[in-house]
Amino acid sequence: MMAAWYEQTVDGVLLDITGVLYNSGHDGGHAIPGSVDAVNRLRGAGLPVRFCTNETTSTKAALVKKLQGHGFTMTETDVFPPAPAVCSLLKQRHLRPYLLVHPNARPNFADIDTSNPNCVVMGDAADHFTYENMNKAFKLLMSLEEPVLISMGRGKYYREEDENVLDVGAYMKALEYACDIEAEIVGKPSPSFFNAALEDMGVTSDKVVMVGDDVVNDVGGSQACGMRGVLVRTGKYRPSDEHHPTVTPSGVVDNLAEAVDLILNHR
Amino acid sequence: MMAAWYEQTVDGVLLDITGVLYNSGHDGGHAIPGSVDAVNRLRGAGLPVRFCTNETTSTKAALVKKLQGHGFTMTETDVFPPAPAVCSLLKQRHLRPYLLVHPNARPNFADIDTSNPNCVVMGDAADHFTYENMNKAFKLLMSLEEPVLISMGRGKYYREEDENVLDVGAYMKALEYACDIEAEIVGKPSPSFFNAALEDMGVTSDKVVMVGDDVVNDVGGSQACGMRGVLVRTGKYRPSDEHHPTVTPSGVVDNLAEAVDLILNHR
Repeated sequence: MMAAWYEQTVDGVLLDITGVLYNSGHDGGHAIPGSVDAVNRLRGAGLPVRFCTNETTSTKAALVKKLQGHGFTMTETDVFPPAPAVCSLLKQRHLRPYLLVHPNARPNFADIDTSNPNCVVMGDAADHFTYENMNKAFKLLMSLEEPVLISMGRGKYYREEDENVLDVGAYMKALEYACDIEAEIVGKPSPSFFNAALEDMGVTSDKVVMVGDDVVNDVGGSQACGMRGVLVRTGKYRPSDEHHPTVTPSGVVDNLAEAVDLILNHR
Repeated sequence: MMAAWYEQTVDGVLLDITGVLYNSGHDGGHAIPGSVDAVNRLRGAGLPVRFCTNETTSTKAALVKKLQGHGFTMTETDVFPPAPAVCSLLKQRHLRPYLLVHPNARPNFADIDTSNPNCVVMGDAADHFTYENMNKAFKLLMSLEEPVLISMGRGKYYREEDENVLDVGAYMKALEYACDIEAEIVGKPSPSFFNAALEDMGVTSDKVVMVGDDVVNDVGGSQACGMRGVLVRTGKYRPSDEHHPTVTPSGVVDNLAEAVDLILNHR
């Protein structure tokens, strides 16, 4: 019989943020019980920890400040959101985006040329996914000879205020279908996105556990990179996720605290 | 060599409305030059004509009144939009919909029970495709053991005010993806929808020509029912439609007037 996910060597841990550390909400959300302590215990044991998030409704600075406010020990250098990776890609390929993003996320693109746009970058725009904004993105894509649509993640939904709400992936599908194109994903489950966090930790994927509440993007995505992917029963988790047609989690735990218990008890 | 589409017997004609008879707009839109006369000439030649539309932003009465205002000769009995077919289906299956539709389309569902909804019916809600309304539909679907999503058409975009704008199909794809379900289509290209218009004319599909500006839903859809599907270069037409990967139109004409010229000249 194969060793359980926590019985194999763990030299580093990647954590999803929303639904694992905290549940988001209009008032700043709230920490998931046990998660603040769990992160501290990982650090106390000398394990490197990075936060791999598809959060795109704010800047990295604002996100870290919010999480610190909830009691989490972290710095900006520990957090890997899609926006900085998108900015690198835009500069490299001389792309000027129409930004279909939340206003709070605009400062992420402060030094990006958005004049005369030749691509669309979309994130979780939430209330700003208006028909008007969607049509702006649609018309631009249809006017381009080689349309480029970059989506910061492809999540279906996420947890907010004790309910699941639509994520960027749903709107990405709308534009893909209307324009007959395929989006490029920056963020989980893109391997290059996970690998940036792994490289920063200096740990190879076979020694790393990723903990998340998204069975496809966190669990399946990390497994595709050679990590163990562990699903938590917090955040947007639904019981049917444990019987997903294509992804079998390396482990399923009630919450981050239980995952950390298992990791530290078997060191 | 096979006879051209207009050289074979034509005993009835189905016409799409938006993009063929007129282009829609916030001020009521405008008739496409030659189309009013083209419809009159078909009728003058004794050919039965029916209007097969995926229009879902108004009632049938309001649509017919608008088109009569543009000069078209038609009555409500000539027009086949999705809403009445949806109402029949809802009653038959005891479904109570959450209506993700344009406010102007609500009167279509006046005698439908919408309390304690157990399905979602969506049409072209346009500006009313807000994040809030999309989430209402999403949450309801996710709460149902056997989610039912009925979409009035699956069009990608349509012509309005001299530009193409997103149609219901894009938003249908968003909900299909987020909820891992497949929508039931009522409207073109559903064969039962076309067949209702054919039965009303009393003409078999092999003797009928459908004229539309949507290469997939009008042209491909009618061909799948055994009709000839003719594409017009008006409305949302784009040159790439003539080289569609899966649909080859039976004919391509500049506008409805040319289609009618060809039909009547070869009788």
